[in-house]
Amino acid sequence: MPELRKDPVVGRWVIISTERSRRPTNFAPDSTARTQAFSPFAEGREDMTPPEVYALRPAGGKANGPGWTVRVVPNKFPALQVEGSLDRRGEGLYDKMNGVGAHEVVIEGADPERQLADQPIEHIQQVAIAWRERMLDLKRDKRLRYVLVFKNQGAGAGATLEHPHSQIIATPIIPRMVQEELDGSRRYYELKERSVFTDILDQEMSEGNGRRLVSTTERFVAIAPFAPRFPFETWILPRSHRSSYHTIDDADELLDFARILKDTLMRLDIALDHPPYNLVLHTAPLGDDDLPYYHWHVEIMPKLTRVAGFEIGSGFYINPTPPEDAAQYLREIVALA
Amino acid sequence: MPELRKDPVVGRWVIISTERSRRPTNFAPDSTARTQAFSPFAEGREDMTPPEVYALRPAGGKANGPGWTVRVVPNKFPALQVEGSLDRRGEGLYDKMNGVGAHEVVIEGADPERQLADQPIEHIQQVAIAWRERMLDLKRDKRLRYVLVFKNQGAGAGATLEHPHSQIIATPIIPRMVQEELDGSRRYYELKERSVFTDILDQEMSEGNGRRLVSTTERFVAIAPFAPRFPFETWILPRSHRSSYHTIDDADELLDFARILKDTLMRLDIALDHPPYNLVLHTAPLGDDDLPYYHWHVEIMPKLTRVAGFEIGSGFYINPTPPEDAAQYLREIVALA
Repeated sequence: MPELRKDPVVGRWVIISTERSRRPTNFAPDSTARTQAFSPFAEGREDMTPPEVYALRPAGGKANGPGWTVRVVPNKFPALQVEGSLDRRGEGLYDKMNGVGAHEVVIEGADPERQLADQPIEHIQQVAIAWRERMLDLKRDKRLRYVLVFKNQGAGAGATLEHPHSQIIATPIIPRMVQEELDGSRRYYELKERSVFTDILDQEMSEGNGRRLVSTTERFVAIAPFAPRFPFETWILPRSHRSSYHTIDDADELLDFARILKDTLMRLDIALDHPPYNLVLHTAPLGDDDLPYYHWHVEIMPKLTRVAGFEIGSGFYINPTPPEDAAQYLREIVALA
Repeated sequence: MPELRKDPVVGRWVIISTERSRRPTNFAPDSTARTQAFSPFAEGREDMTPPEVYALRPAGGKANGPGWTVRVVPNKFPALQVEGSLDRRGEGLYDKMNGVGAHEVVIEGADPERQLADQPIEHIQQVAIAWRERMLDLKRDKRLRYVLVFKNQGAGAGATLEHPHSQIIATPIIPRMVQEELDGSRRYYELKERSVFTDILDQEMSEGNGRRLVSTTERFVAIAPFAPRFPFETWILPRSHRSSYHTIDDADELLDFARILKDTLMRLDIALDHPPYNLVLHTAPLGDDDLPYYHWHVEIMPKLTRVAGFEIGSGFYINPTPPEDAAQYLREIVALA
């Protein structure tokens, strides 16, 4: 059983994945991209994954058979386990609990070679629907506090399989970065009686400003944030107040989100020649469906520089590309979406 | 002039290094180790670096000439600039200030090929002295709040030059991770009237425990922390209360620190076949010389897994090696130091 352990000084929770414990010799030194003649996620190989928990089959078809456009399956090597109780307990001064949760893979298309950015907007909308549907389903499990949707694109960003996919990790704790956003935005709200996210949007989109704007659609905006950790870090935010991603029930809104997501990924692909990237969807915790101070959003972090451990170890980032420059490069790309 | 910018939601400061702004095409895709026929840090090439700010020349010799064992020079491409005032200011709702600070390189030996772990203990002690002396000197600059000493070993950990070196960044702000340690350990102290670090040491070294102990010396201890973010993450802590690294004025203590640092790095080198790693020295902020609740320490993070952006983006770590297993592997290495 994996364990969730809390650092006694800073309060950071970490998953210690005891099931797949790695010996010193098991760490391949900086392995390069695993090219894949054979994708276990491809259409027709549905029996190579655990049985699906969700799938879209617009033309019909049986569960765990072909005909799907987007398919969600449990991760074959899950970091957390669905069964069991949390069993919060101490070990001397330390705190830990069982690694209860869900770990799923969202297979973003049947074609192993077609990247998310290259799918039609309507297909990306289906991926966005799959993310929402899984959140709504996992929300019913009262042990869980948070559903984290993320995507590692490319070996350089940590992907171990090339077939385009995102991942879902549902946890009994709130991830640290989200907790910090919640705390920070709540403090701002208490002080100003306004949402910091609304203020950011107002400032970034105001007349005479816009130096960090990448693009806008009817309902969304893509910006280079004021204090980005990474070169070409780009955020996508809804223009009006929405704290939980899973509360989107409007097909137009989902389609518009798909449109700006495709547009942003394509701009990054063109500007940076298909960089590896990490995408993380930040949303309110399960059960906090409508927080007045929080805004769900997507953070996309191209992986262009090698540095990692030092920044993680100190929390101190050096970014060689001002966001105003990054936004300008990205704006100037002729949008194809 | 580089800028320090603060994220308005989570309060994270980031250095935006405008001087060396990188265009999209300037990011070499995942470049491999730059092998170096020619090290600008080698003895006899002192004119290739900016004039030294500190050097140890046990046998005498002139500044900026040969004969040194450890030499500290300003970074030729500094992330922060020494000259200027902070000039704290707003940009709408955002906060920023000038990127004032110091960025120095500690050349850890004259031989470009001899890694820190392979130096004699007495030599490592000289490196430890250089770190302390630079802290003491930088402390006199009242604009600065923190001196961050760190080391990126190997291209996989972000090193761009192979010649063994560590870096010093002195900043007008306290790095986020250190601030979180200060806040967390102060809260623990207020609650318990004991230092959390002392409690950790007591628990890790107590009879019948020791499952996470790597090694001990007279004055220091190396442990695998209870909730490590990375496989084989190892911390070195002084056994008695010391909050600021730069207050060590005892030669025996420095020698003992050099001993456990060498021993730990050698164990990691043997267990993991000379892994790339990041080393970060955590110490109290400048001016807070004796905090009862804080303990300076060193965190060593071997870079064995590719993942990075996702963890940074979510603050959520999955570690495939339990620290008890890592500590056992490291303990079983025959110590050569």
